Amino acid sequence: MKLLEERILSEGTVKPGGILKVDSFLNHQIDPQLLYEMALELKRLYAGEQINKVFTIEASGIALASFVGYVFGCPLVFAKKSKTKNISDALYSVEVESFTHGNTNTVVVSKEYLHAEDRVLIVDDFLATGAALVGLKNLVEQAGGTVVGAGIAIEKVFQRGGNRLRAQGMRIESLAKIASMSDDSLTFC
Amino acid sequence: MKLLEERILSEGTVKPGGILKVDSFLNHQIDPQLLYEMALELKRLYAGEQINKVFTIEASGIALASFVGYVFGCPLVFAKKSKTKNISDALYSVEVESFTHGNTNTVVVSKEYLHAEDRVLIVDDFLATGAALVGLKNLVEQAGGTVVGAGIAIEKVFQRGGNRLRAQGMRIESLAKIASMSDDSLTFC
Repeated sequence: MKLLEERILSEGTVKPGGILKVDSFLNHQIDPQLLYEMALELKRLYAGEQINKVFTIEASGIALASFVGYVFGCPLVFAKKSKTKNISDALYSVEVESFTHGNTNTVVVSKEYLHAEDRVLIVDDFLATGAALVGLKNLVEQAGGTVVGAGIAIEKVFQRGGNRLRAQGMRIESLAKIASMSDDSLTFC
Repeated sequence: MKLLEERILSEGTVKPGGILKVDSFLNHQIDPQLLYEMALELKRLYAGEQINKVFTIEASGIALASFVGYVFGCPLVFAKKSKTKNISDALYSVEVESFTHGNTNTVVVSKEYLHAEDRVLIVDDFLATGAALVGLKNLVEQAGGTVVGAGIAIEKVFQRGGNRLRAQGMRIESLAKIASMSDDSLTFC
């Protein structure tokens, strides 16, 4: 998506350790007009798929997922990072490693909000190793629901998580796909 | 706001300890159409105030703040709960007590995204003791910016934080104001 790629080139910066900092418009300060356009693009890509739920993870997936839910006319649900491993019967839970923070979180969602009849679009701001996406997919499957696909803002293709999941049959649409990046250059696929 | 009050009455439940559970439409599962209507109501209430930034705190304020930013045509910024007290020079920080979780968080925002010329609308899902609101106001003031007011989804008026801040001159618009609640009843102001 041209609009997003241009924004990454003009405002993104590459930090040591393979971190792309885009927090001027995507995940600290947020440009809601841009995110609305991104949501419309995901609606176009997943037209006719009868998606009835958008699913993301706190915190930085929530803004994009909100607009995606709005344009699809369906609710969104965000999974929560739990401080406790003492999980109740009322929750589905899964362990997810964080590439950015270098730790593992227990991620939970209430059983009230994921069901067997759900056709789910998973939304997130970044796809790198794919750990968060695998975790969210696992939660939908625990509920017996169907993951129609994923809608991602920025995929770091060189970290391979996306293509590994596509090889397993998962549909993933990323609005910007970064082939490689270093301190002074960034190329899209 | 009638639409929100009706939704609270039909789906909200009161939990021990004065917790109002509205996570079927506001802060776990989210109804984006409802939140968009709420954002339009805040736009009507704050018309002409030249707001150029919406400010909230992760995680459950982000969805509403996203729509508020969208209808005001300005960016939103969300403050983050920091795991470390080791705060860098690049951040404004403040300590905020959580009524719901019974702990204290260091809340931070990058100095890049709050400025002296900003006219800020603070947005959050709940207002109870006012601790989060005081913390967010403090962060805007550290940057030298102006807090035009607050836009809150649900105010628990009986916990008095809102009226204490109004008495100090802060404008607060809450879309649903709960006068009292118990296991089997809930009344609006």
